[in-house]
Amino acid sequence: MASSAEQVKELRERTGAGVMDCKAALEASKGDMQGAIEHLRKKGLADAAKKAHREAKDGVVASYIHPGSKIGVLVEVNCETDFVARTDDFQGLVKELALHIAAADPRYVRRDEVPADVLEKEKEIYRAQFADSGKPPAVVEKIVEGKLGSFYSQIVLIDQPSVRDPNVTVSQLIAQASAKTGENITVSRFARFKVGGHVE
Amino acid sequence: MASSAEQVKELRERTGAGVMDCKAALEASKGDMQGAIEHLRKKGLADAAKKAHREAKDGVVASYIHPGSKIGVLVEVNCETDFVARTDDFQGLVKELALHIAAADPRYVRRDEVPADVLEKEKEIYRAQFADSGKPPAVVEKIVEGKLGSFYSQIVLIDQPSVRDPNVTVSQLIAQASAKTGENITVSRFARFKVGGHVE
Repeated sequence: MASSAEQVKELRERTGAGVMDCKAALEASKGDMQGAIEHLRKKGLADAAKKAHREAKDGVVASYIHPGSKIGVLVEVNCETDFVARTDDFQGLVKELALHIAAADPRYVRRDEVPADVLEKEKEIYRAQFADSGKPPAVVEKIVEGKLGSFYSQIVLIDQPSVRDPNVTVSQLIAQASAKTGENITVSRFARFKVGGHVE
Repeated sequence: MASSAEQVKELRERTGAGVMDCKAALEASKGDMQGAIEHLRKKGLADAAKKAHREAKDGVVASYIHPGSKIGVLVEVNCETDFVARTDDFQGLVKELALHIAAADPRYVRRDEVPADVLEKEKEIYRAQFADSGKPPAVVEKIVEGKLGSFYSQIVLIDQPSVRDPNVTVSQLIAQASAKTGENITVSRFARFKVGGHVE
């Protein structure tokens, strides 16, 4: 089983190990990258803690610190090229998103990031609200799904109404900037810290 | 089972519900705060998504964006009073910590935040490095513990050597500022984003 040149290159970048060691490690792991990294580490040939993250996209990391320094936001917004990342249209969007996150306090970027148990708990609570309503279960489930939509628009960034213009969702703001710049734009992550607000 | 005035107060702050409803909810949950919140929510009396975080400490949230906007850091540093939070000594420490995190790329604030499985995997790798050494297991375990210390100083913020002065750990930097300001100072959390570095 021969390892491809790309695999060897990636393994070298991620571990700093030599070509021959990388080839041997990939052979031992039958081409599995993670296995090869562990193999090298067990032999003491790879640097432990400093695993290089693979760069996938371009964009910027921006912050907003609310006056008084008690609330701060860090956000990563991605586009396809550094050229677009430097444009006023893109930078304007990023600035607006950081401000929006500070004000609107979303919990997740996208719906698929909301954990299943959080969703299930929400549904359970909605169902309980209609337990004595006499409505048939199918109707209640429809209402529950409708309420979930409003739950999402409270806690999911791209579903939230824009703080600046509540008639537009954040998703639409992003789409507008995307149309202007001609590139796909996504928010990959954000952090919002409030002093004393750290709850495990 | 009577609920205490403090419990009712906390429940009101966290849900926005009325005094009598809060008392009834605490009674129904036998004094359990989380249960009382869910009880109120099922009755539609509590605001769902906007759970208020409890403010525990003072301090500041600060950011550092590395020139080029491809790396950014957000950090919350706590002290006991807003008075100290505004001093140059404290602000200087906060600025240095944000810069340090950008440069040194720690993964955790404290040792106790390193997940048990990450630790176990490290130990396993260290043990494998000495598998053919012929050393007795007790000796190997001692070496493994020693190597863990160096692992911590790579990935744990307060154990890292300061980027500005490698003879001093971050923990010592914090202790110095603490001595100057006369207040307990802690780092509660940080985020460090690198463009394209988001790995699930």
